[in-house]
Amino acid sequence: MDAVTVYGMKASGNCFKVQLVLEQTGRPYRWVEVNSAAGETRTPGYLAKNPNGKVPLLELADGRVLAESNAILCFLAEGSPLLPSDPWQRAQALQWMFFEQYSHEPYIAVARFIMGWLPEDSARRAELPRLRERGYQALDVMERHLAGQPFFVDTGYSVADIALYAYTHEAHRGGFDLASYPAVRGWLTRVEATPGFVPHRY
Amino acid sequence: MDAVTVYGMKASGNCFKVQLVLEQTGRPYRWVEVNSAAGETRTPGYLAKNPNGKVPLLELADGRVLAESNAILCFLAEGSPLLPSDPWQRAQALQWMFFEQYSHEPYIAVARFIMGWLPEDSARRAELPRLRERGYQALDVMERHLAGQPFFVDTGYSVADIALYAYTHEAHRGGFDLASYPAVRGWLTRVEATPGFVPHRY
Repeated sequence: MDAVTVYGMKASGNCFKVQLVLEQTGRPYRWVEVNSAAGETRTPGYLAKNPNGKVPLLELADGRVLAESNAILCFLAEGSPLLPSDPWQRAQALQWMFFEQYSHEPYIAVARFIMGWLPEDSARRAELPRLRERGYQALDVMERHLAGQPFFVDTGYSVADIALYAYTHEAHRGGFDLASYPAVRGWLTRVEATPGFVPHRY
Repeated sequence: MDAVTVYGMKASGNCFKVQLVLEQTGRPYRWVEVNSAAGETRTPGYLAKNPNGKVPLLELADGRVLAESNAILCFLAEGSPLLPSDPWQRAQALQWMFFEQYSHEPYIAVARFIMGWLPEDSARRAELPRLRERGYQALDVMERHLAGQPFFVDTGYSVADIALYAYTHEAHRGGFDLASYPAVRGWLTRVEATPGFVPHRY
């Protein structure tokens, strides 16, 4: 397989998803660190590659590019056990990935960003109570589902788990306490025990 | 094909997506109107079907359920020209669907909701300037892409267009002016000319 290029920021959970699926599928890749906090995703050169100005971005050897972390996960996992081939199971994986981007990441990842990257007197700390309320709602949905099965899709470990692991394992950095989420904690441990797992280091 | 059941709210653009793909693929369906504004998605009975308490929800004849509008679109379009079979083209469709749920709907649909459903003195009107700024950023990305090709994926009209049409054609209700978005306006017209298109009525 040709090596792919990832434009990503190591500290980002969305970028970590791409790293993890590449490691677990054994695909060769080159990582280009892009510091979005320093404006490097808003330069004319970067915007020419991704007009939405975000990381991660996947670039194939022939120059074609793909944005959106969860679309990248699906593309890179195609043909592997990480992406179910059955249309219904695949739709279940997609359901959880859209849940992640709409009902989980905007609360749990943003709370982590405000607490970990902005100054202690940032006006954005006023957003934290609402982010916590919505983030706990997402964790409630996950807890209920994982109380009944080991991974999000009933075929086993998949891209849906990778998508949801990325910021759930960092939820404490956004001020979330997982003490009353035993099924979620058990699932985090199972994800970390899958073949080829690499921890998120930054 | 067995008929499917859609739990949806007619006024919702996310629910309209499901109606449109069902009409355009010719699949028989039953529509169960659920008024989320009146709390009907938070009842114990509804939460047993969808623990995330949202519409739309697709139910198959055997009782299996699928949430998240864009996951439903992919499932229902499987095997039709609306969902590309090539992995790269399919990933492009997913890219635009994740863009829709993360960078478009939370601004354009929410502005429409605040202006159309909340009282004129609602405190949430304070959110409108930020929603407009972000919504116009999403429209800018769409305009740039559609200046070069007729539909979002280069294979032609797809679920990505259905996903993005749902709230873009209603953007004016959120206070967005499409006058300086000729490529977006041309694309809206092309979507409305596709076989089996039905307008969003509510």
